[in-house]
Amino acid sequence: MVRTAWDAQNNELTKLINTLTEEQLAREIAPGRNTGVYLLGHLIAVSDALLPLLGWGELLYPEMEELFIKTPDKSGQTFPTVGELKLRLEAVNAKLNAQLDAATAEELLDRHMAVKPEDFATQPHRNKLNVIISRTVHMANHIGQMLLLK
Amino acid sequence: MVRTAWDAQNNELTKLINTLTEEQLAREIAPGRNTGVYLLGHLIAVSDALLPLLGWGELLYPEMEELFIKTPDKSGQTFPTVGELKLRLEAVNAKLNAQLDAATAEELLDRHMAVKPEDFATQPHRNKLNVIISRTVHMANHIGQMLLLK
Repeated sequence: MVRTAWDAQNNELTKLINTLTEEQLAREIAPGRNTGVYLLGHLIAVSDALLPLLGWGELLYPEMEELFIKTPDKSGQTFPTVGELKLRLEAVNAKLNAQLDAATAEELLDRHMAVKPEDFATQPHRNKLNVIISRTVHMANHIGQMLLLK
Repeated sequence: MVRTAWDAQNNELTKLINTLTEEQLAREIAPGRNTGVYLLGHLIAVSDALLPLLGWGELLYPEMEELFIKTPDKSGQTFPTVGELKLRLEAVNAKLNAQLDAATAEELLDRHMAVKPEDFATQPHRNKLNVIISRTVHMANHIGQMLLLK
């Protein structure tokens, strides 16, 4: 069920960015707020960061953390093009989906990489599934905002 | 874990509306879009609707469905005051939380009231827990928008 919710948000994001023009994506979601391009990059960077956090490999685009997580929008960064971001979203999702397809329930209930084994012993909710729930909610948060670009 | 995610969204909503002034809540989240008051009423109405959907009782505020779900914002409706909406949010959450506290895992994996037993036999994901996941995502969607009122 969590996987379905995660997939649904990803499908909604992909559908949304394919509906919006590059010009719409370049706009702010509301006056003075983040642009669509920044939020798209932010969501890709956060999904990419799931790979090491869930123990599923290295970041595909390590430079995106600085650009879209650590640095706020409109700080003078140069963003990849929308076309390039769409390819990156696809690549990150393909890698995550392959891992999710292969993951057993047992693995998903195991600790994620940011929690130490001794802490996990007393905090068993700090598992991979919980990270996916939290990232699904995070994505929903920003998709709600990006819908304002329509 | 789903319960924690649900609670976290509700806590964020409560915190957010207590941070915003009545004037901020009366504003549109972006030019021409829904107002904060409408979205708050919408979220309360959707949570209230969980009671019958999960088999946990009647709607507390049946008139809110027409006002905040079936009718779009700015259609000339008269909304309850922000103070009244806050009380209603509290009442709906108190009732839902009491039911969630009492619900067993087995009950949460049982069908919700909008699915027939014969359909549930082949579609076991149409259970109560899945409804809570989907409403958590829905709330995150609108909280992301309401954050723009700050």
